[in-house]
Amino acid sequence: MSAAARDLEDMVEECPADSNEAGWAGVCQGCPGKELCLSQGSQPDPEQQVIDTRLGAIRHKVLVLSGKGGVGKSTMAVLLAQILAGEGQRVGLLDVDVCGPSIPHLLGVEDQPVLDSQWGWQPVVSPLGKIKTLSVGSLLSSQSQAVVWKGPRKTALIRRMIKDTLWGRLDTLVVDTPPGTSDEHLTIVRLLATTRPSGAVILTSPQRLAAGVVSREIRFCQKMNVPVLGIIENMSGFCCPCCSEVSEVFPGGAGAHLAEKYRVPLLGAVPLDLGLAEAGVSCGWRDSPVAQAVRDMVAKIKEKL
Amino acid sequence: MSAAARDLEDMVEECPADSNEAGWAGVCQGCPGKELCLSQGSQPDPEQQVIDTRLGAIRHKVLVLSGKGGVGKSTMAVLLAQILAGEGQRVGLLDVDVCGPSIPHLLGVEDQPVLDSQWGWQPVVSPLGKIKTLSVGSLLSSQSQAVVWKGPRKTALIRRMIKDTLWGRLDTLVVDTPPGTSDEHLTIVRLLATTRPSGAVILTSPQRLAAGVVSREIRFCQKMNVPVLGIIENMSGFCCPCCSEVSEVFPGGAGAHLAEKYRVPLLGAVPLDLGLAEAGVSCGWRDSPVAQAVRDMVAKIKEKL
Repeated sequence: MSAAARDLEDMVEECPADSNEAGWAGVCQGCPGKELCLSQGSQPDPEQQVIDTRLGAIRHKVLVLSGKGGVGKSTMAVLLAQILAGEGQRVGLLDVDVCGPSIPHLLGVEDQPVLDSQWGWQPVVSPLGKIKTLSVGSLLSSQSQAVVWKGPRKTALIRRMIKDTLWGRLDTLVVDTPPGTSDEHLTIVRLLATTRPSGAVILTSPQRLAAGVVSREIRFCQKMNVPVLGIIENMSGFCCPCCSEVSEVFPGGAGAHLAEKYRVPLLGAVPLDLGLAEAGVSCGWRDSPVAQAVRDMVAKIKEKL
Repeated sequence: MSAAARDLEDMVEECPADSNEAGWAGVCQGCPGKELCLSQGSQPDPEQQVIDTRLGAIRHKVLVLSGKGGVGKSTMAVLLAQILAGEGQRVGLLDVDVCGPSIPHLLGVEDQPVLDSQWGWQPVVSPLGKIKTLSVGSLLSSQSQAVVWKGPRKTALIRRMIKDTLWGRLDTLVVDTPPGTSDEHLTIVRLLATTRPSGAVILTSPQRLAAGVVSREIRFCQKMNVPVLGIIENMSGFCCPCCSEVSEVFPGGAGAHLAEKYRVPLLGAVPLDLGLAEAGVSCGWRDSPVAQAVRDMVAKIKEKL
């Protein structure tokens, strides 16, 4: 291993410091914050009780994760929520993608503001299946403002979205996340730790390129004790509307490859659907080939909850 | 506007603090760090001179940005670098996507470590067109390790990649970025500020959903004084290999929509290419329909440099 690589390997991943030197020392022995670190470990977070009360009223908490962007996390999160809501469950959908929230657009609640009541933020209710939803997209007035979100501020916002949102009793809370393994993921998993997340659904596209990035997400789950419910391979082939020839738009079979490598279930492969892409999730998709594939997967997910 | 929204609007975006309260106060008047903030503004960064010397030897610095993930940023960055290198330019490719580095895979240098010489980190040279490249993927020994990268640590790493890398003289440095507008983007743009980036190429996929997220990236560039060289709409249609029918796999025309809205040039629309997706960028793509589209765009980009 090169000196440069070894230098990075030595980093202390769990270092809580927010300075530029966080984790770089490689060892904690000489750190002036060592005592504080050790003492904090035993002190409970004073806000955790509020968080646990809120989350304790939610039976299942399912994370939708993918190391890679643009693989359809948000669309899949919405489909999952819609199918569960269609079965009569009380469903919530939390969008912790701070930089690129897509959920308000997908659920048709783009212009609905979040009300700040005396009991906390009131999630917006989507007309598409009575799904309660909270997203940064609903909290900020203009979608297109270029807010730069530095890590600690993301953490603070997600913390507040968990602590201050009045979900009430829910059967399932689906959590849509941004790509990567960064502040957002660490924050949400830590906040859910005491009430235990039911698990994570991991999305990938079929390319081998995606497999490398998505495998980090699986290792992240393993490390943080989040059960992996399974892998979904999305954008798996495209059916030509003219001649019905199915082409592998993105070839590679990354889903099966990852499932085998990490011994996690492959929940299914979902083809690209022109109807879904055109109409959005609001209508039409219920009769599409995607719909059945997703319904089968939801059935498999429910078995594991 | 709801109370919740107003609360968020009041945040001070440029607040440099790394605490959880950063920017939340809404006003700086009562902040204990106010004096420090004001004094720091006038002090030059002691490392900036080293950074400027390194970057001063690089003629053009082109950022490849997209608010949305999975739109082909890395592939487009590699194609851009390859075409420029093919014209005889000395080209570097810096991958600042800390959580999901794809460049080593795309350039076929996955197993090559970065050497730490006395003059700094030696970028790896790709056999595909003699492109010098540096990526976190090359700095870490195992691609799949689940490193959680908190914001400040990303900043420190990118800073080091800029300060310590021995690029030497280059005609063009292409910078591939992660999705979003977060720590990575703020860091790279600030580090390039004194030597001036030539501009940013902004990628989008055709969906309207992408347009909302990508428009944040354009506003980010405008705010940070990074010229927008133009917009590329990627994954714009799929040509069925069986019947040659071209379908809009992702319909929407977001590229043209964004170009018109923000009055920036639309550099072109690139179709999905099965050959490129299958073979990777290593071979075969030079004769594909994508190749000509990308070459035309590179010509347009070069006019603006």
